[in-house]
Amino acid sequence: SRTISLAVIPGDGIGREVVAQGLKVLTAVLPHDVKLETETYDLGAKRWHATGETLPDAELDRLKNHDAILLGAIGDPSVPSGVLERGLLLKLRFAFDHYVNLRPSKLLPSAVTPLAGDPEIDFVVVREGTEGPYTGNGGSLRTGTPAEVATEVSVNTAYGVERVVRDAFARAQARPRRKLTLVHKNNVLVYAGHLWKNIFDRVATEFPDVTTDYLHVDAATIFLVNDPGRFDVIVTDNLFGDIITDLAAAVTGGIGLAASGNINPDGTFPSMFEPVHGSAPDIAGTGKADPTATILSVALLLRHLGHEAEAGRIEDAVAADLAGRAGAAARTTDEIGDALAARVSG
Amino acid sequence: SRTISLAVIPGDGIGREVVAQGLKVLTAVLPHDVKLETETYDLGAKRWHATGETLPDAELDRLKNHDAILLGAIGDPSVPSGVLERGLLLKLRFAFDHYVNLRPSKLLPSAVTPLAGDPEIDFVVVREGTEGPYTGNGGSLRTGTPAEVATEVSVNTAYGVERVVRDAFARAQARPRRKLTLVHKNNVLVYAGHLWKNIFDRVATEFPDVTTDYLHVDAATIFLVNDPGRFDVIVTDNLFGDIITDLAAAVTGGIGLAASGNINPDGTFPSMFEPVHGSAPDIAGTGKADPTATILSVALLLRHLGHEAEAGRIEDAVAADLAGRAGAAARTTDEIGDALAARVSG
Ligand SMILES: CC(C)[C@H](C(=O)O)[C@@H](O)C(=O)O
Ligand SMILES: CC(C)[C@H](C(=O)O)[C@@H](O)C(=O)O
Repeated sequence: SRTISLAVIPGDGIGREVVAQGLKVLTAVLPHDVKLETETYDLGAKRWHATGETLPDAELDRLKNHDAILLGAIGDPSVPSGVLERGLLLKLRFAFDHYVNLRPSKLLPSAVTPLAGDPEIDFVVVREGTEGPYTGNGGSLRTGTPAEVATEVSVNTAYGVERVVRDAFARAQARPRRKLTLVHKNNVLVYAGHLWKNIFDRVATEFPDVTTDYLHVDAATIFLVNDPGRFDVIVTDNLFGDIITDLAAAVTGGIGLAASGNINPDGTFPSMFEPVHGSAPDIAGTGKADPTATILSVALLLRHLGHEAEAGRIEDAVAADLAGRAGAAARTTDEIGDALAARVSG
Repeated sequence: SRTISLAVIPGDGIGREVVAQGLKVLTAVLPHDVKLETETYDLGAKRWHATGETLPDAELDRLKNHDAILLGAIGDPSVPSGVLERGLLLKLRFAFDHYVNLRPSKLLPSAVTPLAGDPEIDFVVVREGTEGPYTGNGGSLRTGTPAEVATEVSVNTAYGVERVVRDAFARAQARPRRKLTLVHKNNVLVYAGHLWKNIFDRVATEFPDVTTDYLHVDAATIFLVNDPGRFDVIVTDNLFGDIITDLAAAVTGGIGLAASGNINPDGTFPSMFEPVHGSAPDIAGTGKADPTATILSVALLLRHLGHEAEAGRIEDAVAADLAGRAGAAARTTDEIGDALAARVSG
């Protein structure tokens, strides 16, 4: 009998509510010979207010010992913008070398898209997770004066770019359409852009069966609404990936359905799974949060740990549940979790 | 009788074709007592291949003497990515201190949007044009080796941010809805983000009748497809502005209709007007390019120079022309130009 040791970071706002449903469905879907051990980590706004800590080293050390991490959402208006994002969420992604931020975008048959004309959408974004403008490099001089200068430094290395580009090529090769699109802005950000493009072109020669394409990020946003069916796998930098995956979520049924994995493919550190959405303090406590994105993130988690059948069962359950949503009365967070738990255990 | 001294930079690809139509409509709309003097500047891929020059200082000096610049599009696959963009287009924007990059997004009654449900869209993006990740700061170390490090430095100053934020507040105040949204990513890009947010909040106190809002750029892309009607004026940095204005163009009828002005509000240098789209080498020479974006950019140019009535006539002509497009046979670049020229002179 096997065991999954799972670290759970509910975090802030609706994070706590949706994580509870994710665990409910995870428990329901696991076969009896797999034991689930969870440990909940009290991190986020409350902890910061109480102790001033975002992610103490001791907690980071303990987190390392789990097979995976399930995270709800981080961020609260009572905490200055950036403190928890940088000190907790990004710290986890960087410390655990989550260089593949995997964000699938599939328009399920009954999902509601803001796009006209019933497009077919099924692509996955491989967003770099440990470099680019997210490194925290930069600073501010003469802060708060009329002479202030503030910089942000995007740091990109051949080491960091090549490994994520390779991962994306391998994923593209494993999909039926075998197409990989690099998204960057190499006509303006020439140093980082050329590094990405050169490595992309070089690695491409090792994957002759993968069709490649390059798009500037601005043009990519146009295709994401005009012709999203053209995308199969997209590889892109940390910031562009952040932007286009929110847009991708919007066109494939909304942020309530968008799942993600922060993956350390080497397996040196635990990978972390979380909905793409944030802590949504405006609806926290109302029962209005849709836990589906977290539940689909649990499916990604199971697939990552080798439980492919269970991952598929969750995805099928979500597809079936969505089919019943149109015209039906709105359900609470808890009710959606119950419905999906019932489906996967049924 | 007055004179408009106009510098014309047709540039590359479809740039030449659409600029010809822009000039046709400009000539047709001007009253008889306004004299138009144009001077065409041969800049772009051809010039670079012939001489290695992108924008010689002597040309830059001569360009200064015009009242305004009309630009088609810059960029060609035969020139390494970035050479013409940085050496010509961005050089003009920076040299002429075009700190307001104005990009209106209005869904005209007959325009075709990819969005379902007939949204009402009428907003304008004030994109900062002289700072941010566009400054060309950065570099590459050990280029082309497995140990390469490439950086891009976003430079942001209180001086640069305050002037564009003020411009945006003034524009918002002059519109019926009086709403201004700041778009940034201040939970990650904390140095630049806090500079923008602090200045935005401070200037806001001087415009108590303007409603303000803040959105992270990723969230903004969601609203641009789910609820674009919420936007009135958006102010944002150079790179975020690049990305969201392409998306905004896509949802308001496509890049074939999106006009822009690179404005130096102080009047020290000539402002420059150009379609948001690029040189589209794939359709250059086919007569398929839609000159409407350039013609609407001519309207922005006329408004900037104080010819409000003529600007309005062009915009009305475009609206009327669009109403006839649905179901009609496709027209060539030239035919669309002719039709609009006929309407504005009629
Ligand atoms: C909360 C924020 C730091 C985060 C990011 O920018 O990566 C979020 O937007 C995401 O996409 O996971
Ligand atoms: C061609 C390119 C340099 C330019 C930009 O990024 O500003 C274009 O995309 C635009 O939006 O005008």
